[in-house]
Amino acid sequence: MRKNQQPVNYADYLQLDKLLAAQQPESIKYGEEAHDETLFIIIHQVYELWFKQILHELMAVITVFKNSKVKDQELSLVVHRLERICVIQKLLNEQIQILETMTPQDFLSFRDYLIPASGFQSIQFKVLEITLGLKRQFRIEDDKQSFLSRLSNPQRAHLTELENQPSLFELVDDWLSRMPFLQMDDFDFWQLYSQATSTMLESDRMIIQTNNQLTEVERMKELAILDETADNFAALLDVEKYQVVLTTGQFRLSHKAMLAALFIKQYSEEPAFNLAHQLIQKLTQIDENLTLWRYRHAMMVQRMLGTKIGTGGSSGHDYLKRTTEANRIFTDFFNMSTFLLPKAVLPQLPESIRKKLGFYLS
Amino acid sequence: MRKNQQPVNYADYLQLDKLLAAQQPESIKYGEEAHDETLFIIIHQVYELWFKQILHELMAVITVFKNSKVKDQELSLVVHRLERICVIQKLLNEQIQILETMTPQDFLSFRDYLIPASGFQSIQFKVLEITLGLKRQFRIEDDKQSFLSRLSNPQRAHLTELENQPSLFELVDDWLSRMPFLQMDDFDFWQLYSQATSTMLESDRMIIQTNNQLTEVERMKELAILDETADNFAALLDVEKYQVVLTTGQFRLSHKAMLAALFIKQYSEEPAFNLAHQLIQKLTQIDENLTLWRYRHAMMVQRMLGTKIGTGGSSGHDYLKRTTEANRIFTDFFNMSTFLLPKAVLPQLPESIRKKLGFYLS
Amino acid sequence: MRKNQQPVNYADYLQLDKLLAAQQPESIKYGEEAHDETLFIIIHQVYELWFKQILHELMAVITVFKNSKVKDQELSLVVHRLERICVIQKLLNEQIQILETMTPQDFLSFRDYLIPASGFQSIQFKVLEITLGLKRQFRIEDDKQSFLSRLSNPQRAHLTELENQPSLFELVDDWLSRMPFLQMDDFDFWQLYSQATSTMLESDRMIIQTNNQLTEVERMKELAILDETADNFAALLDVEKYQVVLTTGQFRLSHKAMLAALFIKQYSEEPAFNLAHQLIQKLTQIDENLTLWRYRHAMMVQRMLGTKIGTGGSSGHDYLKRTTEANRIFTDFFNMSTFLLPKAVLPQLPESIRKKLGFYLS
Amino acid sequence: MRKNQQPVNYADYLQLDKLLAAQQPESIKYGEEAHDETLFIIIHQVYELWFKQILHELMAVITVFKNSKVKDQELSLVVHRLERICVIQKLLNEQIQILETMTPQDFLSFRDYLIPASGFQSIQFKVLEITLGLKRQFRIEDDKQSFLSRLSNPQRAHLTELENQPSLFELVDDWLSRMPFLQMDDFDFWQLYSQATSTMLESDRMIIQTNNQLTEVERMKELAILDETADNFAALLDVEKYQVVLTTGQFRLSHKAMLAALFIKQYSEEPAFNLAHQLIQKLTQIDENLTLWRYRHAMMVQRMLGTKIGTGGSSGHDYLKRTTEANRIFTDFFNMSTFLLPKAVLPQLPESIRKKLGFYLS
Repeated sequence: MRKNQQPVNYADYLQLDKLLAAQQPESIKYGEEAHDETLFIIIHQVYELWFKQILHELMAVITVFKNSKVKDQELSLVVHRLERICVIQKLLNEQIQILETMTPQDFLSFRDYLIPASGFQSIQFKVLEITLGLKRQFRIEDDKQSFLSRLSNPQRAHLTELENQPSLFELVDDWLSRMPFLQMDDFDFWQLYSQATSTMLESDRMIIQTNNQLTEVERMKELAILDETADNFAALLDVEKYQVVLTTGQFRLSHKAMLAALFIKQYSEEPAFNLAHQLIQKLTQIDENLTLWRYRHAMMVQRMLGTKIGTGGSSGHDYLKRTTEANRIFTDFFNMSTFLLPKAVLPQLPESIRKKLGFYLS
Repeated sequence: MRKNQQPVNYADYLQLDKLLAAQQPESIKYGEEAHDETLFIIIHQVYELWFKQILHELMAVITVFKNSKVKDQELSLVVHRLERICVIQKLLNEQIQILETMTPQDFLSFRDYLIPASGFQSIQFKVLEITLGLKRQFRIEDDKQSFLSRLSNPQRAHLTELENQPSLFELVDDWLSRMPFLQMDDFDFWQLYSQATSTMLESDRMIIQTNNQLTEVERMKELAILDETADNFAALLDVEKYQVVLTTGQFRLSHKAMLAALFIKQYSEEPAFNLAHQLIQKLTQIDENLTLWRYRHAMMVQRMLGTKIGTGGSSGHDYLKRTTEANRIFTDFFNMSTFLLPKAVLPQLPESIRKKLGFYLS
Repeated sequence: MRKNQQPVNYADYLQLDKLLAAQQPESIKYGEEAHDETLFIIIHQVYELWFKQILHELMAVITVFKNSKVKDQELSLVVHRLERICVIQKLLNEQIQILETMTPQDFLSFRDYLIPASGFQSIQFKVLEITLGLKRQFRIEDDKQSFLSRLSNPQRAHLTELENQPSLFELVDDWLSRMPFLQMDDFDFWQLYSQATSTMLESDRMIIQTNNQLTEVERMKELAILDETADNFAALLDVEKYQVVLTTGQFRLSHKAMLAALFIKQYSEEPAFNLAHQLIQKLTQIDENLTLWRYRHAMMVQRMLGTKIGTGGSSGHDYLKRTTEANRIFTDFFNMSTFLLPKAVLPQLPESIRKKLGFYLS
Repeated sequence: MRKNQQPVNYADYLQLDKLLAAQQPESIKYGEEAHDETLFIIIHQVYELWFKQILHELMAVITVFKNSKVKDQELSLVVHRLERICVIQKLLNEQIQILETMTPQDFLSFRDYLIPASGFQSIQFKVLEITLGLKRQFRIEDDKQSFLSRLSNPQRAHLTELENQPSLFELVDDWLSRMPFLQMDDFDFWQLYSQATSTMLESDRMIIQTNNQLTEVERMKELAILDETADNFAALLDVEKYQVVLTTGQFRLSHKAMLAALFIKQYSEEPAFNLAHQLIQKLTQIDENLTLWRYRHAMMVQRMLGTKIGTGGSSGHDYLKRTTEANRIFTDFFNMSTFLLPKAVLPQLPESIRKKLGFYLS
């Protein structure tokens, strides 16, 4: 306790007077209060508080990556903060169970009074999406529309401005692209990697061709998938082909960043890659958690409303299901397993390179 | 302890000698044991043990519903057992996190040795789906194929025989259809209900038409959905129209069962409906949990394999995503909110009827 | 949407301007902001929001039980609301994981600035405890003290006033005591019950005496416990002995309420007992969840501070561990298994009584 | 798929014939099968399967630490495996909810047939405790007894032999003690640390003395705790005093290991400490999870049996509650927060030392 420090009081510190007075059910204005409206208000307020916390962590992470050089000590903190976001997201996913204790009839008893308020209008949620890296052009059509119709002019300006700032996706892409270890003197890693993938793909092809549990139709389908996988491998190792795939949106990371991430995942146990690997894992997890949140949310809305319209004056669950798969960000990390090789066929790093990936003291 | 009772020993009782010797990694046969194969074996064994437990509960429930008269005391037990299934399912959904601790590389180190074994071959899981009420014709194409190509003749015969037995879906449909309360002397509930729904739909229509947050495209889409909802309401109250919708698969419950379920949901607080309402809730939850399991499973497989093939010689995550929405069973309960009315506009039951829905002692 | 209804806006409805401006870290006043102080503020605000929701449910439940006659339809709602409290509590228990992402060093970087604010000062939490039924005399010594030293005069007056209101514990006790089914004409249930318990206790005694896995010391201890259990059974069936045990605090329910609860638990599958049984289960669960919350909280504080003092100027984890076992409320429901008989030896209810416990229509 | 590889079948691979035939309820022998006995068997079998998996991970970790030199790449794998144990433990803690769906009456319907089988007899659980580092002398009295009375001679011999092997606790202690960074040329870290702690303790003392929310009794207690904390700090920095505290069991780590762990925790963001810090965190978490498992288990048993005896012929919940606090292993890591300093007063490492804690490439 510092000299002259004012003693702090629990209720003042948390501003409980404001916080606990901020639940004003609309239903009261039209007759008897709908008991469950308080739950509806509070659960959304809790969501917004946690969104604020997630953004607080995300902004700190962004600040680190805006530097052209990220110190190792900072990386440790970055991973720690992304991990915290994951833990919060898991809670948000569980939280849907609380809303599921509200029956459809309970909800109907105040739904009409809230029109046209809607979760579409959560600015913090849109900031979160944009900060992570969701670009307007990748959003589904309804999402683009809601920028026009459901936001006020200042809100729209604020979000558009934010879209022009570098997102976490872009900053991480830059950081990965700057990784020095991809130049490795005489050791031509990608040549060896290319040979190993050919062998693996041939083995997969043989499995599909000789697997007597597949019907002919299935076999054809699997071989088509394999051909596509082979094409993707080819694109990975050829900058020009890669640029073409980039335009389809199937890849989003730059070529250099993709190779760096792949290298890190393949040799994640090397000390120098440990934190970078954790970073990739956490970003993948954040994406997965967000996807799961959308999916569970969609099911809850369907259970609550069937095909009825929600408070935003539109039927929500269909919209939510479509965003579940579409509005993803770190899909390249998610799909990267396609390109991973088993340890047994992975080129072994020369001792000279491994040394460089170790600690000073080792 | 009964006379002549043999003392029981923990390890013997649980048959731990067999249980703990049943993990034989294939990788050992081809060189060094892949450390993570044990996890792969054990997690699947745990899944199968829980499937057995779920089937144990399900069979007890089926036995009750096979009687033409279900006693109230039995209904209490049925709800209790379905609740247990829900709790187990929630654990199974969490359990995916354990498999997610296996990296793609760890999996690749033994994947090839397991070919062509696959979760497709889990007979207990297919028994579970069939017993709940998943019909062959509703399965997605791959699922139908897997009956032909991935099962042995006796397995196929066993499952086909089971498909001809009444499923839980059908037994619950029968039970709902037999509910006596739908004949209610002079009180024409459905007439009142019909009027109330018209009013509600008109109100929804007005909301959509006057909501200035909707673009014209959105407004058209919402009105089309509303028209469809109105059609469904109409079908609900007209046996012949209902039969037509039945053929589309959009409804699956018989007309009588649908009305009974709807009535129960609307007046769930009446004592006589309490357990029936819980039954409907639990079946809805079981369906939701199963759907979520498929979805999380699909994401995990994508993260593990990308577009690579799995041990069954086919790429699993796409299959799993497609079954997520398709292989659902109690969708009518899930969508029933479409037809629920807010308490305020719901016809009030006459005292004479409410008395009949009460306890003897009340 | 009613005529003249004002359109509602998401941010206004949730009062996001106040809510999201209510995080003012103290650390800013003394230099650089401590990054993790925001988490500390937000998690406590979320706790307080959920406490408000729990109290909202609890007050509705209390209102129902304040009537001398509880309608069956109301009981259904009561159970539903207690279930919601349980679901919220489970989330609160999980939420501790988020605080566990804060390292001790992170906490130390702002701890001093908060002195002497402390969770002791959460009025809502004390209201929750009192409303459930925690009496001042049952609180541990520190808790009694904190009423004097950590609360303001108006707060103390408010809580003292509340302590004089009937708590949920007392209202449920009254309600159970009024149950009509304990007078059952010629059927002397308690006589039969008494005989059955004697048989069971003798069997248990034999098991202890012949169990050769027990050492002599253990055998003596087990027999002493058995004797105590037998004494408690005796007290259960003898009003005067019961009053004596009441004074020790080992039982808290009144004699009539205890017998009613026991009867309901033994025959929970009878329709008339279904909701009452669920009520008892939910109250037990609420108590268990609260206990678990205290325990996990204690562990988290220990991990964060070791034996250092907390912001309240006292070491918290020891206090929390002591309240874990002491500040429990529905322990009688929790311990009731002591008095339950296996179905096989339980007196069967005569048909005339079972009929009375059924539905009107059955 | 290798040449000559035999195709693998799902059911054969998992040995489902044995696994799914290993549930033989005892109740069948004495009349009608008790429905819930299958759940009781399966949940215990699932526990044992997961115990096997935990031991599989633990043994791999032990193997690494048995080497006098632990490579950085291995440490990464060790942390990964300990993390997996944590995830499994969280599931085991959730799993108790499934057993809680069994009512006391359901359990009583087969309890007697299982006598005297008991969880005390789980060899894998005892192996787990011993391997982690629980020494016989630290076990509570009942636990010591159960070695004598509940185990067979070969079991006892096996466990006694295991107790003589180095446990994870001891191996980690050795590894920490070997850390090279504690000799740091001219930089006398511990001298600076000692000064900083004095300052902090004085500040804490002032807070306690001036906190007007404390009663005199509380103030005295807090000052006594502070004195003890000061003593412990003193012991930390004085080898001889430390040896004395070791004999009380309050510290268990060797002096060198304690200082190394403390140093790592204080500077955990330095690259060279990243994995070591994670290792310490995971071990702390494993201990916490195990403790929570015991506590929840105890509550479940109390709810199931009250003060009745369990299948082992003794009342379990009291035993379990006592082991909860007593049978802990990594308490030093848990309590280490006592000795952590806020970043602001922590001595800053000289650049020459920080360089040594970085990567080769940095």
